[in-house]
Amino acid sequence: MRALNVSKPWGLDELKIVETPDPKPGPGEVLVRMRAVSLNYRDLMMVHGMYGRAPATDGPIIPFSDGCGVIEAVGEGVTRVAPGDRVATMFFQGWLSGPPTLEKALTALGAPIPGAGRELAVFSQEGVSKVPDFLTDQQVATLPCAALTAWRALFEDADLSPGDTVVLQGTGGVSIFGLQFAKAAGMRTLITSSSDAKLERAQALGADHLVNYRQVPEWSQPVRQATSGVGADFIMEVGGQGTIEQSLKAVRIGGHIAIIGVVAQGGSGINPAVLIGNAAKMQGVFVGSRDMFENMCQAIELHRIMPVVDKVFPWTEVREAFEAMRAGEHFGKIVLTF
Amino acid sequence: MRALNVSKPWGLDELKIVETPDPKPGPGEVLVRMRAVSLNYRDLMMVHGMYGRAPATDGPIIPFSDGCGVIEAVGEGVTRVAPGDRVATMFFQGWLSGPPTLEKALTALGAPIPGAGRELAVFSQEGVSKVPDFLTDQQVATLPCAALTAWRALFEDADLSPGDTVVLQGTGGVSIFGLQFAKAAGMRTLITSSSDAKLERAQALGADHLVNYRQVPEWSQPVRQATSGVGADFIMEVGGQGTIEQSLKAVRIGGHIAIIGVVAQGGSGINPAVLIGNAAKMQGVFVGSRDMFENMCQAIELHRIMPVVDKVFPWTEVREAFEAMRAGEHFGKIVLTF
Amino acid sequence: MRALNVSKPWGLDELKIVETPDPKPGPGEVLVRMRAVSLNYRDLMMVHGMYGRAPATDGPIIPFSDGCGVIEAVGEGVTRVAPGDRVATMFFQGWLSGPPTLEKALTALGAPIPGAGRELAVFSQEGVSKVPDFLTDQQVATLPCAALTAWRALFEDADLSPGDTVVLQGTGGVSIFGLQFAKAAGMRTLITSSSDAKLERAQALGADHLVNYRQVPEWSQPVRQATSGVGADFIMEVGGQGTIEQSLKAVRIGGHIAIIGVVAQGGSGINPAVLIGNAAKMQGVFVGSRDMFENMCQAIELHRIMPVVDKVFPWTEVREAFEAMRAGEHFGKIVLTF
Amino acid sequence: MRALNVSKPWGLDELKIVETPDPKPGPGEVLVRMRAVSLNYRDLMMVHGMYGRAPATDGPIIPFSDGCGVIEAVGEGVTRVAPGDRVATMFFQGWLSGPPTLEKALTALGAPIPGAGRELAVFSQEGVSKVPDFLTDQQVATLPCAALTAWRALFEDADLSPGDTVVLQGTGGVSIFGLQFAKAAGMRTLITSSSDAKLERAQALGADHLVNYRQVPEWSQPVRQATSGVGADFIMEVGGQGTIEQSLKAVRIGGHIAIIGVVAQGGSGINPAVLIGNAAKMQGVFVGSRDMFENMCQAIELHRIMPVVDKVFPWTEVREAFEAMRAGEHFGKIVLTF
Repeated sequence: MRALNVSKPWGLDELKIVETPDPKPGPGEVLVRMRAVSLNYRDLMMVHGMYGRAPATDGPIIPFSDGCGVIEAVGEGVTRVAPGDRVATMFFQGWLSGPPTLEKALTALGAPIPGAGRELAVFSQEGVSKVPDFLTDQQVATLPCAALTAWRALFEDADLSPGDTVVLQGTGGVSIFGLQFAKAAGMRTLITSSSDAKLERAQALGADHLVNYRQVPEWSQPVRQATSGVGADFIMEVGGQGTIEQSLKAVRIGGHIAIIGVVAQGGSGINPAVLIGNAAKMQGVFVGSRDMFENMCQAIELHRIMPVVDKVFPWTEVREAFEAMRAGEHFGKIVLTF
Repeated sequence: MRALNVSKPWGLDELKIVETPDPKPGPGEVLVRMRAVSLNYRDLMMVHGMYGRAPATDGPIIPFSDGCGVIEAVGEGVTRVAPGDRVATMFFQGWLSGPPTLEKALTALGAPIPGAGRELAVFSQEGVSKVPDFLTDQQVATLPCAALTAWRALFEDADLSPGDTVVLQGTGGVSIFGLQFAKAAGMRTLITSSSDAKLERAQALGADHLVNYRQVPEWSQPVRQATSGVGADFIMEVGGQGTIEQSLKAVRIGGHIAIIGVVAQGGSGINPAVLIGNAAKMQGVFVGSRDMFENMCQAIELHRIMPVVDKVFPWTEVREAFEAMRAGEHFGKIVLTF
Repeated sequence: MRALNVSKPWGLDELKIVETPDPKPGPGEVLVRMRAVSLNYRDLMMVHGMYGRAPATDGPIIPFSDGCGVIEAVGEGVTRVAPGDRVATMFFQGWLSGPPTLEKALTALGAPIPGAGRELAVFSQEGVSKVPDFLTDQQVATLPCAALTAWRALFEDADLSPGDTVVLQGTGGVSIFGLQFAKAAGMRTLITSSSDAKLERAQALGADHLVNYRQVPEWSQPVRQATSGVGADFIMEVGGQGTIEQSLKAVRIGGHIAIIGVVAQGGSGINPAVLIGNAAKMQGVFVGSRDMFENMCQAIELHRIMPVVDKVFPWTEVREAFEAMRAGEHFGKIVLTF
Repeated sequence: MRALNVSKPWGLDELKIVETPDPKPGPGEVLVRMRAVSLNYRDLMMVHGMYGRAPATDGPIIPFSDGCGVIEAVGEGVTRVAPGDRVATMFFQGWLSGPPTLEKALTALGAPIPGAGRELAVFSQEGVSKVPDFLTDQQVATLPCAALTAWRALFEDADLSPGDTVVLQGTGGVSIFGLQFAKAAGMRTLITSSSDAKLERAQALGADHLVNYRQVPEWSQPVRQATSGVGADFIMEVGGQGTIEQSLKAVRIGGHIAIIGVVAQGGSGINPAVLIGNAAKMQGVFVGSRDMFENMCQAIELHRIMPVVDKVFPWTEVREAFEAMRAGEHFGKIVLTF
């Protein structure tokens, strides 16, 4: 079978397809034939050898953090799934339930555990989960990282009720899932973008308020207006130039800012003391557990939520896919198919 | 002005309209011209002198626990509202925020504080709240008790997320609000009734699963089926013959049963040890705070939730209204207008 | 090696020591030489064939729900423990983290999984946990069920802070752990017993208020007095004649009653509607997860909490041990040693 | 009566004692003869005209945010207190219960509401609270701001249990209360200081681990060591050069950093993205509600917690007191007496 590999000196030029022997599932393991993976910024950073949690290594590593596949074979004692079942691969292979711990965090796909960018992969049976039938393989591949991050931020860490106001920044994968989930939960949603065309698409997905931050760089003001001056209950902070400053101005007293974005570089940093006056909370979010994933799928199924796949590439065109992500023109997710 | 009065020996026969001088608002108080009140079982019990929290008294008391009115005049220092504002009267006049306490519980309308069944009433400015414009007076009158009870049970006491399964018992006021709120919050809903016609109306309001408990007295079974055997995440227990036994069979491990109904008489009682095996929680719910009311109104406004008013009577036909409630044929709320 | 066995027609007379081949650990498994087990009411009920969760069976089953042992050998891939480590055996072998589920609940020691009443036992490495050094083997054997039940009730399900009032009923194993943990967490404690001598021992462990329920059957009254009329924040309900009625009178508005006791038979049952007036919560508690166990051990270590072992028997005198438990004279736990 | 006043151009030189007519309590109000106030950094900033929440004003304002006094007279309808009662004055006069809101935040003593630095002051009866008898007036004056901030941070916002590890920075008022409360709640405590003498005093109050940050500027390392590498569950961040960077390195995955200090100036700021990897939470804390105050007093009473008063000045030497605070040599609180 073939797998993606990347190693020192890192970079898109080093991303190669290599031939390796087919793996075999041991006791409690499953063999998965991958159907699709989706792109996350984390994956791009890993290709560039820049990802923090990865063990110091010269490589090679197999990239890709989430995927969709079909069970091809099962090892001894496997009961959770059977050959033919379609599954998502969990980002944290060992975070099944409960709060995060270091031990659980060290089981992430891509690094330190070899990632989903390969035709065949063996996982623990605990590390895969069945998914709703109505979704395409490409849609399923967007769930384990981007969708789960948005889900956890909204429903695990925060304490929201219908009618509360949720702010989404931009129209990347996590933000669009955030919009869809917040709507499903009956919240008022406000989304920002630099593009009116993208804002229109967001409106079609149910966004209540639209702000073009090119035209209104102080987007905390329309948030205040939309909330009678009170401020937003929840803001999903994906990072970027000056976004956190606006988030801190836009959040209500006692409100919640979920910190999602690993791309928030370049800003000059904030003084945490700004949190005092409004008793606000900032909480880092890094994907979630299998329990959370299964709760999320329940909601996706009930509401027939359709993950938004923007562009699809064959996996052999992984370089073009990453370049499309870097261009930042997408709305929702970019996916590779096998 | 005229007011309803009831006193020993209690009963519908003792419910009379009496003439009393017009009240005047003192500092921090408001004078409200009542437009509508809604009926709760609590009100019927109070007319019969049977309501626990009432101080031992021979009466007379002014009944009715919630209402809608218009500010007619304000006392010195009033800033929350102005003459002409339409308001709901809070059930707990002194429970503004935070958890319940005995002190707050002793500020309930009807008893020990004179109730809303009168043409003019004076309240603290803290004891009234503005309400969404799109609602009729009759609809507003259903909010302070029945709607708020359902809201608190779902969103304050329990910890639910979209896709979770909520069970509503029957089609009384609290249950129908529970259905509407649970739908707004993206939950899966199952409702029981003895009447197929009522179940059809519940379906029109968004109920996902319908169970006629005449035909299926063991309604915990369809709950199990609807949840792949897991059981319901949340059950709103309004009381009745054998309902709690079914609730305990229908709730999932670690699930939540909100105890609402003061009419749960006659059952043989349960052994609390039944909660151990499934680590379930039963929590009593008795209306809620002004903060909760205002959060609820935010959601009602966003979702344009229309309270279901079944029958409307002029307030002088209060006896007929109570008899209609006792007949139990209603779907939603019964209201009196002034 | 030798193991305890019991089978139809059940009862203490049927409890026998049988000779069986030594077990061997497979991949991911550990072989444990048992040092001590402690007695729970659950174990007595199982010996009598009366335990609900057990699969319908004629037996034989190996009883005992918790224990202490030493790792004698480990299978392939075991990293959590090494030969020579002293461990506690987890009651729920498969409940490692997060909320309870049916799947996790079906991994209980004793039934359906063979119990700890044997000289040698094989467990998954995930099903054992290292324990503080300063404890004796006998003390460790009391932790997995009784201590963990008290811990979870106080610190996982309830929301308490220092200075809150906690009521413990009687001086059985769970109640005494509840007393010790509540003291460690800075709470005010009140304990009931029928014996002044036992109350004195409880006082030595830090109980702030003592009530002899023989002399004061209405023990809710001293609870009210000790709390300026407000009522207790938390009550650990272990079951017994009339205890729940007193608990419901003793709990504060919005308070928490943890339902622990499987022995609450014989009472006439309660009408759940009694919870409404005081917005109280009743939650069933059935042991807990490995995560909870490890948090508990952290606190036991910091506070040098000494589990109270009342009587110790050699495991071959298991019958005498059960009879001692049935006599109800113990204070704390009864333990068998190997 | 005499009162402190400060106005433009602000500064300690502008802090003056002025003579004004004695105030009289209106309906629902109480007249308090002040006995003591304590100093907070906020007070020093206000004297310098630098406090954010203050309305833009040229002054004069009456400074001081918390105090202890005795009820001298009560207005009509006052039931919470009676003449002769000793009370603490609440920092947020209008935050009685529930979560913070803008409306509640605008009722802070000092600004916008005239502060406690005067011989006689009128407050709403809702804005004062009785306090434990065993405390001196000077001790009581330290409770409404510093103690309540520490209490809320530990027990309202965070979710801790006995045995968890709490880090306190320095030996100022809030940190010392944090140490005392954390000990009362059974937590493991680690405290930092630049002075071995102060660390010794902290040890006498129960600190488990002591770190001199002059000698160990990377104090996150001893925190990691004290927690077997896991990191602290809770850190009270009071601000200062480089403290937040150490806090972020010292906190465990999923841990909680309470942001307390308004003095965290000068740091270069942090990139919120650092929170992602460890899923940590930072929450701003700004004093608390009357409900929280009363819960805190319950714990103070049960544990006989003695607030640490470092230096006491007559209120006419307010300048010397502020200079002592600025010198930063204190351990605990500085108090003025009347």
